[in-house]
Amino acid sequence: MGARLHICMTCKAGLPVPEGEKPMGAQLWDAISALPAPEGVEVIAVDCLSACNTGAAVALSMKGAWSYVYGRMTAENAADILAGAEAYARTTDGLVAWRERPVIFRKQSLARIPPLLDPAVEA
Amino acid sequence: MGARLHICMTCKAGLPVPEGEKPMGAQLWDAISALPAPEGVEVIAVDCLSACNTGAAVALSMKGAWSYVYGRMTAENAADILAGAEAYARTTDGLVAWRERPVIFRKQSLARIPPLLDPAVEA
Repeated sequence: MGARLHICMTCKAGLPVPEGEKPMGAQLWDAISALPAPEGVEVIAVDCLSACNTGAAVALSMKGAWSYVYGRMTAENAADILAGAEAYARTTDGLVAWRERPVIFRKQSLARIPPLLDPAVEA
Repeated sequence: MGARLHICMTCKAGLPVPEGEKPMGAQLWDAISALPAPEGVEVIAVDCLSACNTGAAVALSMKGAWSYVYGRMTAENAADILAGAEAYARTTDGLVAWRERPVIFRKQSLARIPPLLDPAVEA
């Protein structure tokens, strides 16, 4: 199993949604869906990442790896998000070298969570 | 394996640390360590949860369950954090009924991440 990139579909980024417009999360989903998914990355829509005031939020997770959540993403960030997800998917532990992270990932981390299992336990 | 409660030890909560004082994360760790760990909860110190401006941060994770990150925690919240972790550990999917969540968990969620594996895949 490769990396999973979760996109919060319902995210309003803490703002009212103007009539006739989609919430920021759905706009981001549309933009990401329009691009090819990188190798080893599964893009998944989710209903809520509970980062409602700092969205649109995306989360990366992978077996045995640190998980990451990024916030304040917009549709314009779609290509950068996928590039960051691709770099993440190439690791085994989720730790991408700083200079290889998209700037939005360097600056807009909401949180990260350690891998659930120790490598020794997980094998 | 039960639930894991990760405490960010280095968290300065976005503030300078006065000389002679411990960072907020270390204060929180001290307060939590002074209390008994709830059944099914392993308390783990981590170096950084990358929520530096919204710390002190704690994260809950468990196999097959949603992971949660909470922020703006202080040493005064230690008992509530452990109560919330205990309720989380009693679930299989990480989803605690709203009214059973400590108020700090209701109001200070930074993000959540879906379980890595689908139940069918995980078995």
